[in-house]
Amino acid sequence: MPGNDLTIDFKRPSDREPNGLRKVQVERSYTPYAEGSVLIKMGNTHVLCNASVLDKVPPFLKGQGKGWVTAEYGMLPRSTHTRSDREAARGKQSGRTQEIQRLIGRSLRAIIDLEKLGERTIHLDCDVIQADGGTRCASITGAWIALADAVSHLLKTGQITENPLKDRVAAISVGMYKGYPVLDLDYEEDSNCDADMNVVMTGSGQFVEVQGTAEGHPFSRQELDSLLMLAEKGIAGLLRVQQDAWPV
Amino acid sequence: MPGNDLTIDFKRPSDREPNGLRKVQVERSYTPYAEGSVLIKMGNTHVLCNASVLDKVPPFLKGQGKGWVTAEYGMLPRSTHTRSDREAARGKQSGRTQEIQRLIGRSLRAIIDLEKLGERTIHLDCDVIQADGGTRCASITGAWIALADAVSHLLKTGQITENPLKDRVAAISVGMYKGYPVLDLDYEEDSNCDADMNVVMTGSGQFVEVQGTAEGHPFSRQELDSLLMLAEKGIAGLLRVQQDAWPV
Amino acid sequence: MPGNDLTIDFKRPSDREPNGLRKVQVERSYTPYAEGSVLIKMGNTHVLCNASVLDKVPPFLKGQGKGWVTAEYGMLPRSTHTRSDREAARGKQSGRTQEIQRLIGRSLRAIIDLEKLGERTIHLDCDVIQADGGTRCASITGAWIALADAVSHLLKTGQITENPLKDRVAAISVGMYKGYPVLDLDYEEDSNCDADMNVVMTGSGQFVEVQGTAEGHPFSRQELDSLLMLAEKGIAGLLRVQQDAWPV
Amino acid sequence: MPGNDLTIDFKRPSDREPNGLRKVQVERSYTPYAEGSVLIKMGNTHVLCNASVLDKVPPFLKGQGKGWVTAEYGMLPRSTHTRSDREAARGKQSGRTQEIQRLIGRSLRAIIDLEKLGERTIHLDCDVIQADGGTRCASITGAWIALADAVSHLLKTGQITENPLKDRVAAISVGMYKGYPVLDLDYEEDSNCDADMNVVMTGSGQFVEVQGTAEGHPFSRQELDSLLMLAEKGIAGLLRVQQDAWPV
Amino acid sequence: MPGNDLTIDFKRPSDREPNGLRKVQVERSYTPYAEGSVLIKMGNTHVLCNASVLDKVPPFLKGQGKGWVTAEYGMLPRSTHTRSDREAARGKQSGRTQEIQRLIGRSLRAIIDLEKLGERTIHLDCDVIQADGGTRCASITGAWIALADAVSHLLKTGQITENPLKDRVAAISVGMYKGYPVLDLDYEEDSNCDADMNVVMTGSGQFVEVQGTAEGHPFSRQELDSLLMLAEKGIAGLLRVQQDAWPV
Amino acid sequence: MPGNDLTIDFKRPSDREPNGLRKVQVERSYTPYAEGSVLIKMGNTHVLCNASVLDKVPPFLKGQGKGWVTAEYGMLPRSTHTRSDREAARGKQSGRTQEIQRLIGRSLRAIIDLEKLGERTIHLDCDVIQADGGTRCASITGAWIALADAVSHLLKTGQITENPLKDRVAAISVGMYKGYPVLDLDYEEDSNCDADMNVVMTGSGQFVEVQGTAEGHPFSRQELDSLLMLAEKGIAGLLRVQQDAWPV
Repeated sequence: MPGNDLTIDFKRPSDREPNGLRKVQVERSYTPYAEGSVLIKMGNTHVLCNASVLDKVPPFLKGQGKGWVTAEYGMLPRSTHTRSDREAARGKQSGRTQEIQRLIGRSLRAIIDLEKLGERTIHLDCDVIQADGGTRCASITGAWIALADAVSHLLKTGQITENPLKDRVAAISVGMYKGYPVLDLDYEEDSNCDADMNVVMTGSGQFVEVQGTAEGHPFSRQELDSLLMLAEKGIAGLLRVQQDAWPV
Repeated sequence: MPGNDLTIDFKRPSDREPNGLRKVQVERSYTPYAEGSVLIKMGNTHVLCNASVLDKVPPFLKGQGKGWVTAEYGMLPRSTHTRSDREAARGKQSGRTQEIQRLIGRSLRAIIDLEKLGERTIHLDCDVIQADGGTRCASITGAWIALADAVSHLLKTGQITENPLKDRVAAISVGMYKGYPVLDLDYEEDSNCDADMNVVMTGSGQFVEVQGTAEGHPFSRQELDSLLMLAEKGIAGLLRVQQDAWPV
Repeated sequence: MPGNDLTIDFKRPSDREPNGLRKVQVERSYTPYAEGSVLIKMGNTHVLCNASVLDKVPPFLKGQGKGWVTAEYGMLPRSTHTRSDREAARGKQSGRTQEIQRLIGRSLRAIIDLEKLGERTIHLDCDVIQADGGTRCASITGAWIALADAVSHLLKTGQITENPLKDRVAAISVGMYKGYPVLDLDYEEDSNCDADMNVVMTGSGQFVEVQGTAEGHPFSRQELDSLLMLAEKGIAGLLRVQQDAWPV
Repeated sequence: MPGNDLTIDFKRPSDREPNGLRKVQVERSYTPYAEGSVLIKMGNTHVLCNASVLDKVPPFLKGQGKGWVTAEYGMLPRSTHTRSDREAARGKQSGRTQEIQRLIGRSLRAIIDLEKLGERTIHLDCDVIQADGGTRCASITGAWIALADAVSHLLKTGQITENPLKDRVAAISVGMYKGYPVLDLDYEEDSNCDADMNVVMTGSGQFVEVQGTAEGHPFSRQELDSLLMLAEKGIAGLLRVQQDAWPV
Repeated sequence: MPGNDLTIDFKRPSDREPNGLRKVQVERSYTPYAEGSVLIKMGNTHVLCNASVLDKVPPFLKGQGKGWVTAEYGMLPRSTHTRSDREAARGKQSGRTQEIQRLIGRSLRAIIDLEKLGERTIHLDCDVIQADGGTRCASITGAWIALADAVSHLLKTGQITENPLKDRVAAISVGMYKGYPVLDLDYEEDSNCDADMNVVMTGSGQFVEVQGTAEGHPFSRQELDSLLMLAEKGIAGLLRVQQDAWPV
Repeated sequence: MPGNDLTIDFKRPSDREPNGLRKVQVERSYTPYAEGSVLIKMGNTHVLCNASVLDKVPPFLKGQGKGWVTAEYGMLPRSTHTRSDREAARGKQSGRTQEIQRLIGRSLRAIIDLEKLGERTIHLDCDVIQADGGTRCASITGAWIALADAVSHLLKTGQITENPLKDRVAAISVGMYKGYPVLDLDYEEDSNCDADMNVVMTGSGQFVEVQGTAEGHPFSRQELDSLLMLAEKGIAGLLRVQQDAWPV
């Protein structure tokens, strides 16, 4: 961190404290059809996470009595400051999109017992309605609630008898912005930070994914440690929000 | 219409009157970035219509001093009762999607003076958040409001000086359901009707598009006339909603 | 219609009467392999309609004992005044192409009993050899004859025992050209008309599809009525041609 | 050739002599728009060859004052005994299609002076209306006539002043069928021959392309020689047909 | 051949004799996983040919007790003097690539008894590590060795009991360079020759493929004969290399 | 780490020490054309890294006087134990491929001054010849050497005058295998580990990327720390290999 100066000089564009989360709001049963449907808002980032229960599994799992959890991600073309091309019209998903949807899927599979799910798939669709940074993290945090709602639906309707959920999972971004570690980057910080990291953790405080990237210049082990601490703190806050929205 | 029986026997699944519109709600400035952003709800059909102003025109219009209005349409994979494939993942838009987005674009171009728009494009993105029939009609009705907001933005910011909008435009579906003409079909009626028609009309009561299709069995000229009358009535209602949402 | 002037001032580019069809010619068994093969000429618009009988149905119909009728449409790259890209080389069919082939399929399915067809598909390929307006209408009118020939083949070879055809079907375009309603638009009229409509009707005078579009400026209910009357007249002529070519 | 038996035992399915061409018919100006439009029939193989003059060249030739000649090839889905998938619907051209259109393009470029053509492209579209073997050879032979018509058009309209055509070009297939070399294979022979060869030659008797393939079992140098002799004879016949259709 | 001058004036860029092959080197078991893995070098052209045994056949062969041999071909993007686009990134294989991989597959199928192979596929992947002309010929020559190694593997492991290989196969390019027939063209010769030919022959001296193309100007029958003679000589050399690498 | 037992019980499949790197070998100038061409071997993982200098930049950088460094990644179909589909034939790159090539590009851009590179692109192609785990890390480590060679070429030929390289960069994988942290996972370990992490670091010991993923079950902060320490040690070894291969 730059110099020994008073931290009074450092201000985030949003005036948030370095360790301040944006306001998190969760709306369950947002649409009427999906088995789980959650609109999660982290400040100006709004993501609709729909969980669909499908009575089939991918080919590589057929006949094994195990289920699958997977995810797809998309941004509405004008969810961002300037319009992006529609991926369906361009005819392919970008590398970024595929990277994010693979991350969401892995994060959720880390906390579910696929055998207890039985031979079915829960398919999470995370669609960004508006984006102000942190869409992949909001997707994971919201998708867990949608997944939990879909699991409840399976239990209530007697399709499964044991809860396959082993834990909660939530995600947050952290980054070095103007030399200081900050929590939950918005778009302005994200586009100007030196390094950022997306951290996915379970309810029991274990790591599922740690993805740190030096955008501007490489970061030290000490910076890495301060970012991880900040992320742990932020995720604790998100887990409380999940708890409020979906008390076990 | 079947027999001379009392119409008391005929009931729509929604209990609406044959000439009853679903509840229409319009939320403007729904997302913060688009020059026009409208969430339109017609009962359980919710469509987000974003208008983006782009400083470019398609190749065939370059250098002519004229603008362009175009539209794209998409359904979120779980906007429907059962999950549909994501078009971006499949790598192409379906014929239905392309048909609808061409229809939206033509409908809007019918009421705008492209010369007064100047060499720029207004791009409408109509994304269906949840679908209960009539998504193409809701898209057109909502897209007009988003277009008008984008035009206001251009006028306010001095990018254009004359209003290029020549009229309003709105759309509604009508159909023969169990032998009776009904207005504003929902999904259950749409899947079981004999014939349905999408009608697009201007504020001055002229037709922009008339698309009638016999799904079950062909319809007579008399039925066609009764459907057109119903549509005229329904569109008058939608124009009033537009007026309320966007008083000139 | 403009003013009260003598209609003597109005002339179509082709010198046809406002209600005049182009010369229609039908050649059956045009190619030797297809179960139905019809070259239909409407003036300078020539479309080859081949009907293929396939011993399979689409996945959503499997095992239901019902058949299917579907269509594909294409234009040879130089069927038009200037060369268009080959869709196979570009790697996808345009929105227009998909819209047209869906229309042809729906029109034919409206007059056939799919249960009597048995679990097989009749696939219509409508390929435009040369285009002078009205290719989708010529495709439908010609495709019905090819379909009827394929049905005859199935009956003659004993593959089916009951005729699944319930009626004839034909299509024509009408439009407002220089303020007058005209029948069967050629390319020059089509590119310069204010509104045009494609109408598909059965032998018994019912409507299967009505697709009216305001290209230039919207049209009134009165204009719509005059166009529908003209279309009914034109289709009566086409049905006679079908009758001559394929007397039941 | 098998044994010393009397050749009286050998019969082609079509009863043609081993060195017999099918009946060749050429119809020029087949469609009204293309600068060259030729329907060529070799027995039951019918190919429409349209030549389009385009005022542009591929990127790699821009600004060099030279022209280009290229070709595309397609088969109508039901040009064959059983229906094939439409390449535009499948979203890509097969390897076979690409191989053939590259061959047609190379064959024509071998006999034209691209500098004399000026900075423009002549684009040949060879579309198979019905196929009974030998479509690529018919395409080349017919395309030359369409190309010559397009060149005539350029000369007549004064767009070029010198004839860029250096020679004629034509193509024929030959093959070993039941042990005997035969000329101009039809579909039945083509599917059952041991080896076949497509030969492209100029009016002055030089080779442009020789493509021999052992389908069943490899062929000897002696067989190769006999096939080449047969091809030379067949091409001489085709050059006479070209001469009749298009006397210089 | 030009004039009666002393041939002392003719020099190949590589200083090789007109009938001189480049140095051929073969490394077997190049990678550890494939059932056959051969790196073949012909001068600066290096191709890695991997043969994979797969326990499945293409759909058209299912249940017939016969096997299949097929090939795919690719060039590493910087195997050439200037970088070419990566086909996987562009989203399709070029026409040239498809032409070559079809040629490799046909050449290998000409010398194998598919019935003796049983219901399995041997899939050859020919990947060009560096290219200096003649990559398709090197691919065929090397792929035969990889195929033979895969067959040995099947025999050794008792999956088949009879050797399905009927013969060897090898390929070489020949061409007219500055008026002289030369063997085994490198890139510099290939880009500047008037005509070139790829010849594929069996161990018993029969032809499998002959593909001659006039790049600059057409070639005579006499030139064709001299090229074939040269190719026969070159292939004899390659067959000896195969013999050394893979003595039966 | 499991219990307090003697570590004598823990054995890696390769018999390597937990902190043991595989044998690393680097061959520069592997192919003759690329400006940088490096074959890097880490045990049985072999990756060919070619650096191409291109005189153009992506559209978003045009006219800014800055350069670009980017990467593409591919696996030969039979680089693995069982054959994978060829991405060029399937028509698209997998999500994994795109994720890896984006990682390689970001890692290299972290240590180069794009302004000093001038308006040109260095394109890295990392093609996996054979794979035994750790291909993305080997790609980064090898690509740096190829990049450095390409930079040397630019300096030697006077195209640039200042060295744009700011540092070295190398990458290694670490993971929890049977409860123990191990360095440089091979395929067997990678497929069976509970968590793995790819770490990219600079010569000065800073982090460029940290990508940890819990495959089996989530990992603790303590495990994360032990993996990071192991990675730092491993990368120090790789930097020495780079130094040997490419002494500054």
